[in-house]
Amino acid sequence: MPEAATARAVIGDSEFDRDTALIRREPGVYDIDLSAGWTILGAVNGGYLLAVLGRALAHALPHADPFTISAHYLTASRPGPAVVRTGVVRTGRTLSTGQASLFQYDDEGREVERIRVLASYGDLDALPDDVRTTARPPALPPLEQCFGAEDGPAPVEGGSAITERLLLKVDPSTLGWALGAPSGKGEMRAWFGLADGRDADPLALLLAVDALPPTAFEIGLSGWVPTVELTVHVRARPAPGPLRVSITTRNLAGGFLEEDAEVWDSADRLVAQSRQLARVRL
Amino acid sequence: MPEAATARAVIGDSEFDRDTALIRREPGVYDIDLSAGWTILGAVNGGYLLAVLGRALAHALPHADPFTISAHYLTASRPGPAVVRTGVVRTGRTLSTGQASLFQYDDEGREVERIRVLASYGDLDALPDDVRTTARPPALPPLEQCFGAEDGPAPVEGGSAITERLLLKVDPSTLGWALGAPSGKGEMRAWFGLADGRDADPLALLLAVDALPPTAFEIGLSGWVPTVELTVHVRARPAPGPLRVSITTRNLAGGFLEEDAEVWDSADRLVAQSRQLARVRL
Repeated sequence: MPEAATARAVIGDSEFDRDTALIRREPGVYDIDLSAGWTILGAVNGGYLLAVLGRALAHALPHADPFTISAHYLTASRPGPAVVRTGVVRTGRTLSTGQASLFQYDDEGREVERIRVLASYGDLDALPDDVRTTARPPALPPLEQCFGAEDGPAPVEGGSAITERLLLKVDPSTLGWALGAPSGKGEMRAWFGLADGRDADPLALLLAVDALPPTAFEIGLSGWVPTVELTVHVRARPAPGPLRVSITTRNLAGGFLEEDAEVWDSADRLVAQSRQLARVRL
Repeated sequence: MPEAATARAVIGDSEFDRDTALIRREPGVYDIDLSAGWTILGAVNGGYLLAVLGRALAHALPHADPFTISAHYLTASRPGPAVVRTGVVRTGRTLSTGQASLFQYDDEGREVERIRVLASYGDLDALPDDVRTTARPPALPPLEQCFGAEDGPAPVEGGSAITERLLLKVDPSTLGWALGAPSGKGEMRAWFGLADGRDADPLALLLAVDALPPTAFEIGLSGWVPTVELTVHVRARPAPGPLRVSITTRNLAGGFLEEDAEVWDSADRLVAQSRQLARVRL
């Protein structure tokens, strides 16, 4: 397993960068081989997929940073070949809007749409520094007192490859589910980084918001919690260092729940907010 | 002004229904004359526009109820002719996903895109009744102790036509801005209904989430707060009677803020959640 403390990957040259890299087939159309390295029990992580789509739009639009990106998840992605088709909706001075879809191939080689996104991009570095906020960072124990997959027993063969690529240290007070005693509260909190030491950028924030265990586990539910829709607002470029992520679910109703994520950087700035609608098996 | 207490419009036969009615031009393409009745200082309200798009998708998709709808606002809409073009992205047994765009016409008659949305629709009545929630309705004074436009001085000619179509009674504790003394807290709370007495349905919830004065006013900012992106999750079909809406802004940074809305029905159910990213002039 990569050792976060010693590895020194940088933005542009890390596992995350290599596994989200796109090959331009023609203007606005990009090929990619979805890596098996970002799977959870065989399913490709929704945040990794969003980062792939987000990177394609950064190529296709005149602005580089996702300000707000909304994804509707249509069918389950698998590791392997995929194509991202992008379209420019509108370009403006400070904001540009684009659309992108990720497709894979069925047995006859026909494209099957996996995810469709709409997004507005801008330049985070061009924004004024003003911040007025009542939001406070999540209360998390120091990283050394939180728990990761590497602190448990040896992983199951074919389990969650993504855990090897993340530095994910979960607040023990939101880990009751792992001990058979879920708190009943829809909260999950963790320290987040990339295992090879690469610092976070806006694309990595798209991964961060969907990387923690589902809040449904702490509510006492188990099983797959597929995302229907996920919207991320990137509010600032993250400072170097590990991020803190909190996920909150307040309302489970009719077999659906929302997951609200906040991502805070080492400078105590709220760098991303997200909300997803997900389905649960009751 | 319509008198909410006496008027008895019903779902399907009210101002809101007439002003969101679409004429089918060809499969998936609908014409509409955007009403001047839902404007605020000349700008067409974003929630009314979302309801128009939401209604077009209800026609175009096999499911009738928006579960999650994400809108990116591209250019400012004006009262007058518009066309909505819809596309089916995927149809499934319990959820269908569609896309829609609203266009108006420039001086040469060319279509100019105003808004693009992605949405997933289902059948709210088919959901199980299970609710597990830690969310609580907003603390609002009784409707009679809240304030509407009709409680102030006579409206400015050409002011906000939408106020005549809504029963909007704002919590006085979030009205400091109107007296020149904003609280500094990014909160806005109100009772919400349609002035002609029509009860709310899922489409009216799309209007409700964007109908209150901007939270920016209570933060001490003034002027136009244009929406960049707005996502609404409809969580349940609202019970008859007035709704309670709370809007919260926690983080204003770099000239952008989020507005989180919750809508509660008369049966104390959380019927909609929304978040928008909006721009402010600092």
